[in-house]
Amino acid sequence: MDKDGIAMALIVQKYGGTSMGSIERIEHVARKVASWKQQGHALVVVVSAMSGETDRLLKLAKSIDPRGNGREFDQIAATGEQVTIGLLALALQKLGVPSRSYTGWQVPIHTDDAYMKARIQKIEPERLLADCKAGIVPVVAGFQGLGPDGSVTTLGRGGSDTTGVALAAALKADECQIYTDVDGVYTTDPRVEPKARRLDKITFEEMLELASLGSKVLQIRSVEFAGKYKVPLRVLSTFVEGPGTLITLEDTQMEEPLISGIAFNRDEAQITITGVPDRPGIAAAILGPVGDANIEVDMIVQNVGGDGHTDFTFTVHRNDYERTLELTRRIAAELAAKGVSGAADIVKVSLVGVGMRSHAGVASKMFKSLAAAGINIRMISTSEIKISVVVDEMYLELAVRTLHKAFGLEERQAA
Amino acid sequence: MDKDGIAMALIVQKYGGTSMGSIERIEHVARKVASWKQQGHALVVVVSAMSGETDRLLKLAKSIDPRGNGREFDQIAATGEQVTIGLLALALQKLGVPSRSYTGWQVPIHTDDAYMKARIQKIEPERLLADCKAGIVPVVAGFQGLGPDGSVTTLGRGGSDTTGVALAAALKADECQIYTDVDGVYTTDPRVEPKARRLDKITFEEMLELASLGSKVLQIRSVEFAGKYKVPLRVLSTFVEGPGTLITLEDTQMEEPLISGIAFNRDEAQITITGVPDRPGIAAAILGPVGDANIEVDMIVQNVGGDGHTDFTFTVHRNDYERTLELTRRIAAELAAKGVSGAADIVKVSLVGVGMRSHAGVASKMFKSLAAAGINIRMISTSEIKISVVVDEMYLELAVRTLHKAFGLEERQAA
Repeated sequence: MDKDGIAMALIVQKYGGTSMGSIERIEHVARKVASWKQQGHALVVVVSAMSGETDRLLKLAKSIDPRGNGREFDQIAATGEQVTIGLLALALQKLGVPSRSYTGWQVPIHTDDAYMKARIQKIEPERLLADCKAGIVPVVAGFQGLGPDGSVTTLGRGGSDTTGVALAAALKADECQIYTDVDGVYTTDPRVEPKARRLDKITFEEMLELASLGSKVLQIRSVEFAGKYKVPLRVLSTFVEGPGTLITLEDTQMEEPLISGIAFNRDEAQITITGVPDRPGIAAAILGPVGDANIEVDMIVQNVGGDGHTDFTFTVHRNDYERTLELTRRIAAELAAKGVSGAADIVKVSLVGVGMRSHAGVASKMFKSLAAAGINIRMISTSEIKISVVVDEMYLELAVRTLHKAFGLEERQAA
Repeated sequence: MDKDGIAMALIVQKYGGTSMGSIERIEHVARKVASWKQQGHALVVVVSAMSGETDRLLKLAKSIDPRGNGREFDQIAATGEQVTIGLLALALQKLGVPSRSYTGWQVPIHTDDAYMKARIQKIEPERLLADCKAGIVPVVAGFQGLGPDGSVTTLGRGGSDTTGVALAAALKADECQIYTDVDGVYTTDPRVEPKARRLDKITFEEMLELASLGSKVLQIRSVEFAGKYKVPLRVLSTFVEGPGTLITLEDTQMEEPLISGIAFNRDEAQITITGVPDRPGIAAAILGPVGDANIEVDMIVQNVGGDGHTDFTFTVHRNDYERTLELTRRIAAELAAKGVSGAADIVKVSLVGVGMRSHAGVASKMFKSLAAAGINIRMISTSEIKISVVVDEMYLELAVRTLHKAFGLEERQAA
């Protein structure tokens, strides 16, 4: 990338719907790709549909039958990317960069037959590699693949990220760059804490925890995929120049920062069953019917009781609150529990960092800081690289800013 | 089709862009297809993109590069039909009719690699036939195919008609029905002669002459194709019930009508070179440079002269008039011809009918009728089943109505 003659790299670049949102933006992306090409790199580009297009197409399909056949939905939805690959290839050619567009089936990218949420099973990279060798930039449709019976499949929302990472893995690319409308991964949401800052580097595990907790920069599946196949992943902005954030394997040579970021989730609701007879199988007895009702449970906490009883608390999506509360009351009655209580005005705030593994005291520092700010903790849950607390929703901003400051997240930039 | 138990037929139905123009219209088409299915027929449906969609897509592509790569134009343009096949399949399924959509490559419909005007080379009908046997209605994307290297190709404007006919041939269908926004082929344009009437039946040859002369109901190539493979072709309306017009082989058992219809073309201009030395190769000397300039010539008439000179007249598209006139003046000078004259305000009116073959006197009746109406004929050209005259544009309506009456075209309906 610099003039000292760093060897040519094979880079997969993925541009999202906002980057493909208009002819002008597509031509902007073409200039970016051309400039990387000019630096001597081999490029494979993956694109999403123009922003709003997939929604428009699915709306058409749903206006006929909201619960229609998934195969036909995918046949229709996949056209969004087929348009943008053609447009970007044209824009590259106009700049003098040889280019060629590929739909999912043309690569081909083989998937299973789970329409609307298909999983990639195998990619045949030969045509793309041949193009790269011939100096051609292949532009590949994200989000789509070829099902076992020759049908068009789609990977579900955000699937273009997965396409990018899977292609990078299949091509053994040096890096997979995900271009989006933010310039990297931040220590927390800048709308809540203006002092939030961009991270230069983050591990796959941290990114997974941050993404699943609400920092919606990348599709979770693509991060899992990148981690599994050890594809260095970089999130960066289409519109602002900068190095973005590199998501990579844990680097033991580098001193790990204690905490990478603070995630939060406003969409939670809490349900507590008190005085449940403490006997084996109680968790299953409670969560079984909840799962059967297709309600997804997030946090689960069970306190050991002293009198042969226990308190059982879990959180669900706020939309499922009323339904879950009603269901839980029936379960509690069957179990002869004391009572059921709940709260829909709660949020989850999580500290994430691989450094937690080797540093004691993160949890107590977290709890002390929150206490000093007068914030009551309703629920605690921990994993190896994450500590989550549930607090009243009114404390969300205060909790995030308190922890951001307590763990020195805004200061690290100078280092 | 009736209750007396006529054997099940295999019918290919093609619905154009207007018929696919909205969700409501697609659901209307689905009801039509379902009703044919209910009558016991096996159906394969071919559809165009929603009206205006192909133009929208090509406009997007051209806004990047008006002379861009044909492969990418086709990749983009083919998405229009991929959307409507999915939508119609959904609409059929909603009515309880098992259905499955197929893009060109999914059938597959193999073409050559002439992007934007590809020609169908081979269709593999096995999947569609298997669907028909299983009671499934396949919905196939018109206008598109699979190129030799696995690229998406398109057949050019109106190519969905060709897809319909080619599929009917490959499937050995009993009939290919082309649904459009007119209810059949008329004796002439009803806007010019309100007494024009729908023909029940017409031969392929007549249809070819009528279509090429300006009655733009069907793509010419699809009629050629239908004639070559002896596929009975029926033009009928999506919106008005009726038998339409059957385009079929000449039926020797049926008494042929003298004349089937009157076509006309307003877009012509006439160029005449007078006093050209009459020697071999003179036609080539004149038309060679015209062809080299990419000007398409329609009628060509050469009068034998008595004095070793001849007059040479031809017609071109009116848009090419000025350019052709200028070019012809240069050619005339080189050939030492007497002079060049031209007229852009002329039209061509043609009588078409296979009956001409066995009936003398059609030409003289035509010329007499026009003379009686005071219409001067500037140019005459004849073929086996067609007589064309060039007249001043001001006489167009009068000429069409005069001939329509003279050949009794409005009266045949009672028969």
